[in-house]
Amino acid sequence: MSKRIAGPEIERLIQLLAKVPGLGPRSARRAALHLIKKKEQLMEPLAVAMGEAVDKVRICSTCGNVDTSDPCTMCTDPRRDDTTIIVVEDVSDLWALERAGAMNARYHVLGGTLSPLDGIGPDDLNIRGLVNRVAAGGVSELILAVNATVEGQTTAHYITDQLEGMGVKVTRLAHGVPVGGELDYLDEGTLSAALRSRTAF
Amino acid sequence: MSKRIAGPEIERLIQLLAKVPGLGPRSARRAALHLIKKKEQLMEPLAVAMGEAVDKVRICSTCGNVDTSDPCTMCTDPRRDDTTIIVVEDVSDLWALERAGAMNARYHVLGGTLSPLDGIGPDDLNIRGLVNRVAAGGVSELILAVNATVEGQTTAHYITDQLEGMGVKVTRLAHGVPVGGELDYLDEGTLSAALRSRTAF
Ligand SMILES: [Zn+2]
Ligand SMILES: [Zn+2]
Repeated sequence: MSKRIAGPEIERLIQLLAKVPGLGPRSARRAALHLIKKKEQLMEPLAVAMGEAVDKVRICSTCGNVDTSDPCTMCTDPRRDDTTIIVVEDVSDLWALERAGAMNARYHVLGGTLSPLDGIGPDDLNIRGLVNRVAAGGVSELILAVNATVEGQTTAHYITDQLEGMGVKVTRLAHGVPVGGELDYLDEGTLSAALRSRTAF
Repeated sequence: MSKRIAGPEIERLIQLLAKVPGLGPRSARRAALHLIKKKEQLMEPLAVAMGEAVDKVRICSTCGNVDTSDPCTMCTDPRRDDTTIIVVEDVSDLWALERAGAMNARYHVLGGTLSPLDGIGPDDLNIRGLVNRVAAGGVSELILAVNATVEGQTTAHYITDQLEGMGVKVTRLAHGVPVGGELDYLDEGTLSAALRSRTAF
């Protein structure tokens, strides 16, 4: 804001809110005003919730998910099938697949994709951890739920090579995921169908 | 969420974010994940900024604006014209007028409009404070920048009645075609008003 419309604490609140995805500068002002009006009911609990998340969030040492416990909710859930691991690029993809609710498997979060141009190699991703999980035994299928992008597919091929001879079946999501599309933006129906129609990689 | 995808602290963060205007349930998840990834750079400063706002925000005892000081930024700004008060329903209207940047006047925030059906009478609004400010002298013009709704206009008439004989000029915003607006989409009332108030080209 070029012109000050309120005290520095409110201006700063607006500036920070504008950096939250989904809120632009105008929405940030509306959000700030709503938070101010709902000070006790919303802004205070939200400040506390953010503070707690800052303190407690960690990366799961088993699967690379972010959560407030290590191992994470996905890794400790007793109702999940240990024999199947769904491999995703990002936590947002894990959340999207959970919303689809099609499978009760374990997950593995790579933390990105191989991208030589950006200097991202195998050691920059959580691939070694995945190979170790498979080597430890008990995993019969690995579903490569990576994005249908060049980088995603390159990463899928690399992982498949690493697992050769380990006796694990590697599958991928069925086509039906739009080429170039990102999992996070897909509807639940498409994601469920793609999981059901997964094919051998 | 019907199915737990993360620890209770993260689930609660998503639930609270979903109550922020501009963020729905899906955007709230994306926002939460972004905040988690930008823990030090964004979530922690935002938690602190919200906590500070909770502690410091108050209502200006002069004009009814919300700010972190009383009197507020608008009431203490030495470059503003003391002789003109712009009367608005809500703080959001004050912010919108400031963005327009058309006038350097003082403000008065009513905190709503008269609405007998909702049981909102003159004592529920910041009208007495406005009459007192005018009675204290030095105000030559009052601009009623209330919404062009039945309630807004009823409130404007009520305020005008209260100020009768106090020697202050009462004006209101011009009706007309919004800048960039297409005639085709405007209601008949606006078009009629714009025609009646036509100006030389
Ligand atoms: Zn985990
Ligand atoms: Zn004020």
